[in-house]
Parts: sequence; C-alpha cells; structure tokens
Amino acid sequence: MSRKWQEECGVFGVFDTKKTSPDISKLTYYGIFSLQHRGQASAGIVVNHDGTFLCHKAPGLVSDVFDELHLGALSGHAALGHVRTPASGESGFDVVQPMQIKSHSGQIAISMNGSIMNASELRESLKEIGAFFQTTADFEVLLALIARNRVATDSLEGAIAKMMTEISGAYAMLFMSEDRIIGVRDPLGLRPLVLGKKDDMYMLASETCAFDAIGAETIRDVLPGEIITITEEGVSSIYTVPETSAHKDGKLCIFEFVYLARPDSFMDGTSVYASRVNTGKALARECPCDADLVVAAPDSGIAAAIGYAEESGITYGQALLKNRYVGRTFIEGTQSAREMAVRLKFSVLKTAVKDKKIVIVDDSVVRGTTTRHIISFLREEGAKEVHLRVASPPVKFPCYYGVSASESSELPARTKSVEEICKEIGADSLGYVSLEGLKASTNGALCGHCSACFDGIFPAGVPAGAEEENK
Amino acid sequence: MSRKWQEECGVFGVFDTKKTSPDISKLTYYGIFSLQHRGQASAGIVVNHDGTFLCHKAPGLVSDVFDELHLGALSGHAALGHVRTPASGESGFDVVQPMQIKSHSGQIAISMNGSIMNASELRESLKEIGAFFQTTADFEVLLALIARNRVATDSLEGAIAKMMTEISGAYAMLFMSEDRIIGVRDPLGLRPLVLGKKDDMYMLASETCAFDAIGAETIRDVLPGEIITITEEGVSSIYTVPETSAHKDGKLCIFEFVYLARPDSFMDGTSVYASRVNTGKALARECPCDADLVVAAPDSGIAAAIGYAEESGITYGQALLKNRYVGRTFIEGTQSAREMAVRLKFSVLKTAVKDKKIVIVDDSVVRGTTTRHIISFLREEGAKEVHLRVASPPVKFPCYYGVSASESSELPARTKSVEEICKEIGADSLGYVSLEGLKASTNGALCGHCSACFDGIFPAGVPAGAEEENK
Amino acid sequence: MSRKWQEECGVFGVFDTKKTSPDISKLTYYGIFSLQHRGQASAGIVVNHDGTFLCHKAPGLVSDVFDELHLGALSGHAALGHVRTPASGESGFDVVQPMQIKSHSGQIAISMNGSIMNASELRESLKEIGAFFQTTADFEVLLALIARNRVATDSLEGAIAKMMTEISGAYAMLFMSEDRIIGVRDPLGLRPLVLGKKDDMYMLASETCAFDAIGAETIRDVLPGEIITITEEGVSSIYTVPETSAHKDGKLCIFEFVYLARPDSFMDGTSVYASRVNTGKALARECPCDADLVVAAPDSGIAAAIGYAEESGITYGQALLKNRYVGRTFIEGTQSAREMAVRLKFSVLKTAVKDKKIVIVDDSVVRGTTTRHIISFLREEGAKEVHLRVASPPVKFPCYYGVSASESSELPARTKSVEEICKEIGADSLGYVSLEGLKASTNGALCGHCSACFDGIFPAGVPAGAEEENK
Amino acid sequence: MSRKWQEECGVFGVFDTKKTSPDISKLTYYGIFSLQHRGQASAGIVVNHDGTFLCHKAPGLVSDVFDELHLGALSGHAALGHVRTPASGESGFDVVQPMQIKSHSGQIAISMNGSIMNASELRESLKEIGAFFQTTADFEVLLALIARNRVATDSLEGAIAKMMTEISGAYAMLFMSEDRIIGVRDPLGLRPLVLGKKDDMYMLASETCAFDAIGAETIRDVLPGEIITITEEGVSSIYTVPETSAHKDGKLCIFEFVYLARPDSFMDGTSVYASRVNTGKALARECPCDADLVVAAPDSGIAAAIGYAEESGITYGQALLKNRYVGRTFIEGTQSAREMAVRLKFSVLKTAVKDKKIVIVDDSVVRGTTTRHIISFLREEGAKEVHLRVASPPVKFPCYYGVSASESSELPARTKSVEEICKEIGADSLGYVSLEGLKASTNGALCGHCSACFDGIFPAGVPAGAEEENK
Repeated sequence: MSRKWQEECGVFGVFDTKKTSPDISKLTYYGIFSLQHRGQASAGIVVNHDGTFLCHKAPGLVSDVFDELHLGALSGHAALGHVRTPASGESGFDVVQPMQIKSHSGQIAISMNGSIMNASELRESLKEIGAFFQTTADFEVLLALIARNRVATDSLEGAIAKMMTEISGAYAMLFMSEDRIIGVRDPLGLRPLVLGKKDDMYMLASETCAFDAIGAETIRDVLPGEIITITEEGVSSIYTVPETSAHKDGKLCIFEFVYLARPDSFMDGTSVYASRVNTGKALARECPCDADLVVAAPDSGIAAAIGYAEESGITYGQALLKNRYVGRTFIEGTQSAREMAVRLKFSVLKTAVKDKKIVIVDDSVVRGTTTRHIISFLREEGAKEVHLRVASPPVKFPCYYGVSASESSELPARTKSVEEICKEIGADSLGYVSLEGLKASTNGALCGHCSACFDGIFPAGVPAGAEEENK
Repeated sequence: MSRKWQEECGVFGVFDTKKTSPDISKLTYYGIFSLQHRGQASAGIVVNHDGTFLCHKAPGLVSDVFDELHLGALSGHAALGHVRTPASGESGFDVVQPMQIKSHSGQIAISMNGSIMNASELRESLKEIGAFFQTTADFEVLLALIARNRVATDSLEGAIAKMMTEISGAYAMLFMSEDRIIGVRDPLGLRPLVLGKKDDMYMLASETCAFDAIGAETIRDVLPGEIITITEEGVSSIYTVPETSAHKDGKLCIFEFVYLARPDSFMDGTSVYASRVNTGKALARECPCDADLVVAAPDSGIAAAIGYAEESGITYGQALLKNRYVGRTFIEGTQSAREMAVRLKFSVLKTAVKDKKIVIVDDSVVRGTTTRHIISFLREEGAKEVHLRVASPPVKFPCYYGVSASESSELPARTKSVEEICKEIGADSLGYVSLEGLKASTNGALCGHCSACFDGIFPAGVPAGAEEENK
Repeated sequence: MSRKWQEECGVFGVFDTKKTSPDISKLTYYGIFSLQHRGQASAGIVVNHDGTFLCHKAPGLVSDVFDELHLGALSGHAALGHVRTPASGESGFDVVQPMQIKSHSGQIAISMNGSIMNASELRESLKEIGAFFQTTADFEVLLALIARNRVATDSLEGAIAKMMTEISGAYAMLFMSEDRIIGVRDPLGLRPLVLGKKDDMYMLASETCAFDAIGAETIRDVLPGEIITITEEGVSSIYTVPETSAHKDGKLCIFEFVYLARPDSFMDGTSVYASRVNTGKALARECPCDADLVVAAPDSGIAAAIGYAEESGITYGQALLKNRYVGRTFIEGTQSAREMAVRLKFSVLKTAVKDKKIVIVDDSVVRGTTTRHIISFLREEGAKEVHLRVASPPVKFPCYYGVSASESSELPARTKSVEEICKEIGADSLGYVSLEGLKASTNGALCGHCSACFDGIFPAGVPAGAEEENK
Repeated sequence: MSRKWQEECGVFGVFDTKKTSPDISKLTYYGIFSLQHRGQASAGIVVNHDGTFLCHKAPGLVSDVFDELHLGALSGHAALGHVRTPASGESGFDVVQPMQIKSHSGQIAISMNGSIMNASELRESLKEIGAFFQTTADFEVLLALIARNRVATDSLEGAIAKMMTEISGAYAMLFMSEDRIIGVRDPLGLRPLVLGKKDDMYMLASETCAFDAIGAETIRDVLPGEIITITEEGVSSIYTVPETSAHKDGKLCIFEFVYLARPDSFMDGTSVYASRVNTGKALARECPCDADLVVAAPDSGIAAAIGYAEESGITYGQALLKNRYVGRTFIEGTQSAREMAVRLKFSVLKTAVKDKKIVIVDDSVVRGTTTRHIISFLREEGAKEVHLRVASPPVKFPCYYGVSASESSELPARTKSVEEICKEIGADSLGYVSLEGLKASTNGALCGHCSACFDGIFPAGVPAGAEEENK
C-alpha cells in the first residue's frame, strides 16, 4: 500500500461540547482510518478523560494498531488522532504522534502535519538556554516554544500565536489541553485543515473525507493563519492573517489536487475529483492523441483518464490491473527484483491491449521508473503504440513543505527535455498538462496555490542550504 | 481485503528438471502471491531439499507469512505452495496447507483446492478399519486413501487414480513425493489447473496470472481427469477421462469468469477480462437504460461496466471509491456498525453523482445488503435515478464445489421476483444478464460450464442431505 | 532453569465424577505447574467440555503458556495436562502434548511420559498396512495401535491392554475419551504414577507434589501394569501384571530418588527428601572426610549435604549461591562462554570459604564440567581443601527409559577410575555412595528399583542397536 | 521471581580506556544480569559508538530483553546498563532507563537508582521557567537541572555538582557523555556504588557481585558525595563532601545487609553474607529457643538460619521448598487465590517436620501474611511447635529512599506489640534481633548506617507531607 508521493501526515480532532458521546475514540478511529492515505507508518489517538490524557499509538496501519479493546479503554469527551509517515531525519518510536507533555499550564497533546523550515535553528537556540530534547522531531521544538511562551502569556492560544511568529513553514496542527482543542493552519494555508460538526461535536481534520466517513457535516475550511478553539462554549477563532485576505493570499499546495488528497474530499470549497477530471479534459485539449483506447495508470490516473476519454471521444478502457495485496513487507532489492516488484504490482490485460494504440494517463511522473516498466509490459503484450499523457506539469523542484516523493531526489525533468524523457520512458509520445491548465481545473477554489514543485517559487522560504541545491 | 465470493484455495507447484535454480521458493512465493485473491486466510510453501521436505506455513497473507529469511531457508528443486480460506467445518492451525505425511512409500505433500462430496462417508469407513484423523480437513482423508491404496499399487499415480474413483467432487490437487510433483484436475474439470514453463522448470497453478507474474509461459490447461507428472525426465500424463472428450464434456465453474478469477488470467483458452467486457455488452443489449453515466460497483464490476458503457454509448465514469485500507481486522458487529463498515469501505464522489441518472453495474448480487447501502449513499448525494445492472443471472442455488458466498446462505433470488429484489435494494430498475448471454460471452472456451448456482444442475452431485435443502 | 538431568515429561489428569467443579482447568494448571521440574519446553491442557475436546498448548513454561483467559475458556469436567522436554528424534510444534485424534470409537486425547523401545519398528509395520504419520513422536504410534486394536475390541481399556503387549518400554500414560480418563503405568513400574482425590474429583499425576499443591489427598501409587479408569461411576482397574506381585517385581527408576522427583513428593510410599538425607548419612559413613564445613552443590545436593553434616558432625554452611534468573535464553557457545555461564550461575561466598577445608556434596556427577569449574572457583577464593562427595554411584550407562542427561553422552565413569576423575575435576578427594547404600536409603519403598545407569541391567530391554553401544 | 522488598534499581557502567574491547555490551549484559535481583521490571543498555549513542531497552528480565543480535549491534567503547522496578508514581514505557537526551553540550545518557525527595517541587519550578516534561520520572527532572546548569558551567561534572546542591535524596547515578562516564553517590552514601577494573576497563556498579561475574577486580566503594569521572585519561574525582569524613559520616542503607544486596557482594568493605550469618548468631543469643530443628524461610533467611543453628547448636535442616518456576505471570486475586499462591510457591517436606519443634528464621517480617500461611502449612503437616525468629528489628517506618516493601503500606509493627503479632502469625513464640545486634553484625563496615525503617530517623529528610504520615 505504498504511495508514489507521500503526504507526511493526517490529523483529526474532536470535542464533544455536551460531553455525552460514549464513542469519541471510535469516531476518531474512523476519522484517521479515512485519512490513512496520508500516512501508513504509524497511528495514534489521545483522549481527554476527565482531565487525564490517555494515549495509544504504535507503528502500523490504523486497523493494525487499534482493536475494540484499545478503543474501549480510550473513553473521554475530546480526542486527537494522527497517521504519519516518517519525515526525513526522524526515526524511531519516539516520534510517533500524538505527543503529550506536562508543562507550566498543564498537559498539552499535539498532532501535526507539515514541515518547519527553521526547526534546526530553533532547536539549537533553545538548547543555548538550557532546553533539552528527547526526540528528533519538529513537534518537540514547537512544544518547547509553546511551553516557554506560555510562562509569559495569558492563554495557550497566545503562546501558539507567538510560536507562529517564530517558525516558518507549512503546517496544520491540532493541540489538546485540559479544557479545549485548538486547530492551527499555517499563514499561507499551504497544508489543508477543515472544520466539521456532528450532533454536539465539533471536529477538525486534514480532509473532508474524514467527516463523510462518520456522517458529519463539513462546515468550512480553516483559514490560513487561523487559530481555532473548540471548548464547551463552542467555536471561536483568532487570526494571525487578516480574515478578509487570508484565502485570497493563500497558497494551498496544488499537489493535494494532483495526487495527495482522496478524490472524494473537497479542498477550499472545490471537489478534488472534479478538478482531476477537469485536468484530464484540459490535457486532452492541450495534448491530443490519435488512439484507440484511453487507459489510466492505476489507481491515481483514473479520474484524469476518464476526463481525457470524455473530452477526446476516445473509448475508455482498462489495460492494467493493480494487485491489491502488494503490502509493506514486499521483497525488493536488486534491479531485477525491482522489475519483479512492478510486475507483481501491475498486470496487463492482454486481450485489451493487443494491436491497440493506447493513451495511458497518469496523474504525475517523477522518476518514471515504474512508468517505463509498465510501457514495456504493454508493448510485450502487443500494444501497437503507447502514448503517455500526464495530468500535471514536469516536477522540477523538491518539496520542503511536508511532501516527499517516494522515488528518490533525482528529478529528471530538471535537466532533461520532454523528448529525452519520452525516449527514456519508451513512450511513442509524451505530453504534460500546462501549469495554467492545471490551475484552471480547480476553478472555484477559494485559495491560491503553491506550485513550487513545478515552478520553483517557494512562498514560505526554504531551509538553510536548500537554495544552493536548487540553483 | 475480504472478497464477496470466496474461492476456497489457490495452488502452485514447480519442479526444476535440471535442479539448478537457486530460487525455487521465491518463484513459489511470487506464484502464490499472484493467487492471493483465491485465499487470504493462510499461506504455505513446502520444498523438496534433496529428499527432505522443508515447510513454512501460517495463518495470514502471503506477504505476512513469508520474509526473506523464510524463503532463504526453503531451498530445493521442487516446491508446492498454497493459499486458502477455511472451508466450512474446518478450523484451526492444523488444516493450513501444504500438508505432509510419512507413509509406506515415503513422504508425500499435498496442496489442494476444491471440495469432496463424500469426504465424511469416506472418513467414517476409514475409521472402521482403524484409521484415525488429527484434523477435520478433506485432504487428510485423501492422504489416508492414497496411503492405503499405495500398499497394493505400483506407483503413486496409480494410487491417486484409484483414489479418484473413490471420491466425487470438484478439485485441483498437487502432490509432491521425493522424485516428482503430480497435478490432478477433477474428471469434470470443475476447478481450473494450468501448466506452465520457465527455463528448465515446469509449473502447475490455479490460474495463468501466476505464470505471468514470474515471466513463465503458459503451455495449456490440464485436462479434466488428467493426472500429470513432472520429474527430471519431463512431463507425462495418464487420463481417467478419455483425452479426446475431456474438454468437450468438461464443466468448468462459470463463476470463475463472473468473479473468482483474476481478470488477466485465461481459463480454458479464454480471457477472463474479455469475457467480462462481453458480458457487460450483452447486458447493455438485454437490459438497456436511459441514463447519464455508467459506473461500476468497485472493483469487481469495472470490466462489465466498461462493456456496458461501450455498447450503450453512455459515458463511463466513477461514482464510488473503494478504501484500499479496509482490512481483516475491521470493527463490525451491530447493524449500524455494518452500515458504518460499508460507509468506510465505499465513498461517494459527490460532484460526479449530483442530479445524474446513474446505471451501476455489478458482477453479481447475492444478498444485496452492500448494494442497498451503496444505492442509498448515491441518493443521499443527489443522484436523480439509480439503476442496477448485474453481469450474471440471479443466484438461486448454493455451491457445493469449493466456493462460498461470504454473504450467508440466504439467497433472496430463490423466493423473490426481480421486482421484489429491486424494491428491497432501493433501485429505480434492476436487470440481470441471461444465462445464455453470460455463456456466450466466454466464446472460445474449450470447456463447457457448470452453472449450478444459477440453474441448479449439479454435474458432480451434491453431498448427502443437500438435495432436500434445494427442493 | 535448565536441569542437570532431564525427566522427559510430567502428566496430570482429573475427572470430576459429579461434574460440578467450575475450575477443572485451573486445577490442571496448578497440577502441571507443580510438575514443571519434569519438563520446561512446552505445556498443554485438553478439557472435555460436554463431549467436545478443547485444547491449548504451546512451547514455553506453564506460566508463559497459560493466562486467566485461556483457563477461563477451558471449562469442562475432565482434563489432561502435560509438561515436556523434547525427546531425541522429536522436533517441532507437532509433538507438543496433549495430542488428540478422532477414530472409530470417538475422540481420544493422550498425555504421556517415557520411552518406547520398539517405536520405530512398530511405525514401519503400521506403514506397511497403509497407516501414515504426521509427526515423529512415539505417541502417534501408540494412537495408531489403539485405533487399530479398537476396531476389534469392545473397550478402550481392551485396546490399550493389547497395545501394551505390543510395545516395550518405560511409561506413564493418561488417555481421555468422551466418558472417562484412563491411566497406565508400564508393567515394570519404571515411571511413576499416583492416584489422588479432592472432593468429587479423582486425579492421576506423575508425582504427589501435584496433589499437595491443590490440597488433594494422595490415595496410592498406580501399580506397575495397572490400567486404571475413572468415570462418573468412580475408579476401577484391570491389571496386566498380577496385582499381588506388581509392586514386588516392580523396578521404579532409582534416579527419581536421586534427582528427578521433587523432594516433597512421595514415590511408592517413600519420602524423596528423607531418602536423600538418608543417602547423605550413608555417604558420610562410607566416605568420611576431615573438614571444617559441609556445603551443598546448589540446589540438588542440599538434602544429602544436610544428612552428611548431621551424620559427620561437621558444620553445615553455604559456600555457593545459585542465580535464580539464569533462564532458557542465556548466551552460550564457546568454551570461555561456558565458563562464563557457570560463573554467572554460581557465585562463591568468599568469606565463608577462605582458609577452610570444605566438603561439597552433590547428588550425582555425570561429565563433571560444572563441578570442575565450581571447585576451581572455591580454590580461587582461598579454600584450603575441597573434597567432593557424591550421593549416588558413578553413572556408567545411558538411560533408554525416558531420562536424558543434559551433559552429553560421554560418561567418564565408564572408562576412568575414581582417582582419574578426582584429578580431572580438581578435588582433593572424591567419594561416591555405594549402590547398596543408595538403595537402602529408600527403605520402605514398595517397589524394587531400576538402577541401569549404575549397573547396566536394563529390565525392559534396550532399543535395537543399543546393546552394541554398551559393550 | 518477585521479591519481598524491592530495591528500585541496579546500575552498571563501563569505559574502555584503550577502546579495544570488542565486547563492551556483553560485559554490560553480564553486569546487569548479576544485578537482576535489584530490578525485574525492565532492562536497558546504551553504548557510545564513536560518539553515537545506541540503545536497547524494554520491559522484562535481562535475559528476555537481550539476545545475541541486540548485543552484537551495541558495539562501542563505553556503556551504561540498568535494571529497574517501577517507583510509585511512575508508569509506562517512557520511564525505562537508560534515558538519553540531546542538549547544549551534546548527548547525555543517565542510569540511576534511588529517590529524590524534592523532585515534585523542582519539576514545578522548572515548569515555571518554561521547561516541559514527557515522563513522570525523577531522572527527567535531573536532566533538566543539568541541562540548565550546563549553560553557565564549564564542565558536565560542574553542572552535576550544582544539581546535587539542588536536590536532596538517596541515589547512585551514572552519566555518559561523548567522552566519559561519570558516577555519583549521594552525600550520605545511602545507596551503594562501587568501582572496579578489568584489563583497560574501569567500571561502576551497584554491587561488587557484578564485578565477580565478569572476572573484574573490585577497587573500592565510591565515597558518599563523590563525583567520579572515567575518560581515556583514567579515573579522577571531585568531592561534594570532604573526602576524609565522607565514609565516617555516611549512612549506607542497613537493609542492603538485611535483604537487598546479593549475599556474595561486599558493601563498604564488609561481606553481606558474613553480616547475615553474624546477625543469625546474635539472634540466637538474644532470642534463644528450645527446638529440634532450625530451618530457613527460603531463600532469604538461609544465611541467618545457618548462623542461628551454629550458635545455638540446634541441627540445621530443610522444611520448606521454594518453587523455582513461580514467575511474574502467576494467577492471583482473591484471598483463597492468595493462599493458593503461597501454597504453590512454598511446599513442606512432611517427613522433616512431623512431630518436630521447629525454629524458622526469616530475614525480616513486614505484614506477615506469607509467614502466617507457612506456619499454618507446617502445623498441618504435624509440626509440634513453630517458633519464629527474625534477623532484623520490627519494621515501623516506610522507606523514602528508593526501597518499597512489596507488601502494602500497612506496617503492623507500628501499632502492635510483639505478642500481638506473634498471635496473628500463629507462632508459638516470636523474637526479633535488636537494632544494636544487627548493626554490630556489619562490623568492619566503613560507613555508618541509615536504619530509618526501624528507628524513624531519616538522615536525608522526607518528602513534603510525609512527616504527618509518620507521627
């Protein structure tokens, strides 16, 4: 169940304002279960049980980490949940979230998603004044800042707001203290966060699909720079970015639309699925093709392929199957083992491709290794022509904002022409949608977009040393 | 990763005639990995290491049961593999295959798929002469028959042929003794078995997809009633059914085409995927519909839905997503938990269905519980009309030949009209393809078909007591 | 918790004649817990729950294998329990007892202790008539004989009696069928078996300490050759050896008194502890010594050392401590690692030994490796003289009757004089009690004794090929 | 393997000054293995591998937590090890030691034993200045103090010395930084710590038995208040208590001699075993008895019983056996289950006690529950009289210095007379050794003693609120 690109985390929080729900941990379980695509390495839930924080977390999929017993033990009226993938530089059990600490102002739990540009610098300067760290994770630095700020600040929200002036980065964070949960979206809104409601419970989550899963209603996106608090009194917010311009100046990661988000989610008011179908249509207009059959690179290319087929009038079909049982423990290693892995993961429907001219539509291409194998398999089975159409522009820059491409740091598109890549991949032709075409497909979105991986414009800056790397 | 219908097992065997391959256990691993859809409850491999049989088997998915360490330890020149789901009446660790015994004529291992009609009667009569049994599994009865027959028979093949006259049922069996592997397909060919080759290795498997996965070539289907032996000398066969009429009189399970087999496999010479697309086309002709969008019940309805769309000219699209992370450990129980489970498993693409007239195509419908929930979800999100089209006839009879419907024994289609079922499920209209339409879609298949679940004609008989039940 | 010598198993069975006890599995747990010294490799319990046999068994100590949950699930009115150590030639999970089968006359479970001389020959001849075997364990052969005999015999007891004429060996066996439990002691009574009672429950166990642990009363030793049956009707017996001469002609293993049994047990009417103290006294008379301090080789030499001190008038003291935490997983390997292991297992009380003349009393000496290290440690810490006194004669022959010395098959006493061994071990003097002295110490025992390991007289014969070995 | 009283931890550290030993982790393993009696709940080792700290730790016994694989991976030239039992108020995985942090001056690992009186107050005041805590353990407070002190202090030793002025309590601590290990004993020397040497390696440990186990030489006790540093340069010390008076004014816990330490250890120059035999002799003089047999309450009363027998001239014998297999997982709960537990743990040698007048010698008595059961068992088996003699005075006060009695906080000796306790326990007579008699038995010890549990004089103070409790 590995994914091509990797969002580094998914977060979910819930607060029952009437404190009557018996099943807060089950709701949280269903919530993070629905966000599983955002992180498969570990899962955790912390609940507030009358002021005592109870936590269960472990490496593994949500369904492996939790059973009825765990959930039964985690009763309470407020909860945070988390799914994650290790960020680079992090390791071990100690960075599994949610994390809890005890400080001046009581207990705080954190569940976060994203990346802090200046985490190392902040860590060092905190050490200079006597702080020490037990983990290598960013969130421990954030908690240290908040604990320090809290001493001189009236409220937890105030300490968080001050912390936001000290850090730069892309993030969505949830905090739980004894009487509230708090959600934070970074000032540019690079990472998503949404507010929902079910009965007397308010919820915060990375994506709306978590609300649909539990029958909750989506209220709205949290604004860029907003600090939103849920207590027994209900919902209130303070804004570190003017409320009126927050969305307009926002820069939501466009890769959420391309690949990261689940297609049934809505981001900043726009359907992710619709944007992908629209991108496929734009791709058909920008990069037409004379072919017998439109097929998707399973599964992430399906929506764009359907759009491409509809716009082009070419029949939509299946040519490739993805093995549902390819899991985390699969045997890899050598080059031939890698080809073997692709062969076990994707199989070709021979009768569907024999003597056909095929357009294969993928959501994105990074290194192209898997794509090269797939095209070669299609030819082996008698495809006459294989044309590749990609529903995003060439990826030329790494992401520093909490997304990692599972295919290494080499980005062929930075140094090679489209023709060269086409040849390497072994396609008869290769076309990418334009950045304009992609952006237009999300029409209706309230936010602007960060498209740094395509255009190199990093709105929240880059970590020390990274500028050199991107020259 | 539960499946709607359940083939009870998948088998794989390999014999290296030159005894030079270092990776017989890895090949077997890849083979059963590709047959995982035929059984998710346990996995096992036994290898012949210079006359010593080494075995590793355990409950779980292939990728959970085996790692590099296990496979490295299982070196040899011949191997059997197995994946399975518990048959009714079986339980516990002791029935995990492959099974090995030591008898008069040495060691024998067995890996089998299918069901023996008269297993209980045979078990009792063997007990009468002093045999005892440690498991509740059919294969222990077969091994007892073979061990007894072997005392008075020259060859293992002879003892197996005699055993085949004593049992009735639907089966594919692989045996390994010290110098050979042997494959057996039941006299009616109800269960599939294919022969393949790679380099100096001959292989037997339930489906051709296992050969594709390892880059082996499919040679042919094993004939109904054939006993095929692979030794250092190569391949040889004896026939319990005349070779010339075996295929013609054969009765391969038609549900392999409907649902059980992987779409990229070929059965008795016919592409499973093509037969499903063809069935979808037949369904479009037989049960047309005025609609805006054809969608599949994911994932098993996709091929038929593509055929339906192509034949009808209605646009193919997506309306439902299937959660890839819904695993074995999911939390169920009450009625509302059941609805919750369906909701977590399938999510609706709201923008795709709102105000649309939708045809949803499924491969088959048994109890219809999941379908009823799905249709209800589509209506919640604003679908104007929801029409259900099914790419197989109504299921009116249970299967005694090694397939179990995961949805209980109640078969609504036996007592209710199509109109009543349509109403229960909540669809605006309901249409099934005809049995003739379904059979025609497999045109080119060498075998005839068993369609007992649709027409109640059981070519290999039924177990004692079952006739009563089907009146 | 490894032991010097290894009894290969302990058995326990219970039948509640009124079927009212709620805690049959807990009683069985306590029973085998008290027999843990007879086998540390695996543990198991099978209960008869209204005719259904429920079993839990696994490798490990009793307290590791079972918890409240397992015991709660194992409710019933009759039970067998087992603790064991692998016999040579056995391996793997499949030989963990109790074992259950289904045969002509219903279910049978077995829990046995001991060794069958002609098991291999019987196994081969059963194969000749079509039987097959799934394990390498003796008990599967016994079950095959019983299943075959049962076809032509009225009762299970009759089938067992016939089986006893077919086998030769040293054994205690417990069987459970649907309406009874049956205990069997071999015709020479080589292995022990006792009958006890608590409330309405009758019990059978390897040693009386199991009855004391649960507050049950010891009734009597099962006679050599007795087949004792417990049903709802109570207790009844048949005898394969005349009841009057059974004890007189019996040959209970004398090593039970020397080392194997727990000191608080009674065997054939005699206290094991008292016999050990008596042996120590005899040793003091036969092998006196001029010394300051009598110490025990912990823990098995304590009783004899106390007897030696009392008889000799020399002060009893401690010189060596045994580490209670030396477990199964300890790290061994090379020669120096072996010395390290002894050093970690035994530590010397320096102030107690400095400048002292010490007599160290051990229950027995086989290879003497550990003893040599211990004597060397005592000298390192300043002991002036170290004299070794052994409470059994030199071990000159292997045991074929279910006991294995953990120190390999080399038996120095066969080829070397007492003086040579004394020198090798590094003692200032070495004395063994005489066989007569040892036998006299069990005065009051109802049975005679097998002392084959000392005198080479094997009353139940030896396995094929073994005679050669002992010339 | 539960213990009556519980020392809360054992520590071990080693530094190879030549950096040539390949087996630093094995030595550490053997070291903490020998200290297992000081803590059975968890075990851990951290090594310095060229500046990188590698750690493995987990709940469980040393032999369960580590295997060859773990030890092989932990290569380095310096190491700390730890065994522990949870202190009250601590819980969970996060308090398993050794603990590591990263601070201003690099990495620090800690392995500690003991108790800090003012830990809560220090924790709160650190929170006031912005510190936060992830665990509930004292050592995290110490690390916070050191990290803060280190900012303004030249050396780690300086920061530790300052921390020692801020805390009060009883402790032995080991620290490891990138170039050294440091040992600290509290200013009163309440907890023990010793220095040893083997080849080019210097070592620190809670008890000398750890050095004997690995063939190392004991150099000396670390002085009360000493901060001892081991680097490549060798050993150096600074003193927070004048070196000349440190021992004289010291107050080593007298319960180390009574029960806690392993008998083969030496504490402040005195043999623990000898002190226990001496106490038994004093007890015989102070509380003589007319009896046939002196027996020990196994195992902790053995040394005193031997002394009592020697001084009184009464025969020493065994009457009770302790089951070696009673482990952590044993089934308890109700009152009768508790009696059952004692019965399984201790069995009586019937022939040894029948019609005898018995003196049973125990090291100490707290609640007396187990003793009461044991005396009752002895009477059941026919003991004519049972007299109890205790080798320490009545325990009237709780310990705040790192020792917890496993039998609850009720201390009968505070409110009841010796006669009342004797009657409750069911003995014919009861005698305790005097505190003077006990202290005299350690003659030759360099240190004075803390005997607060007997006399209520707490030399390092008590935690806030505790004074009230002890009135």
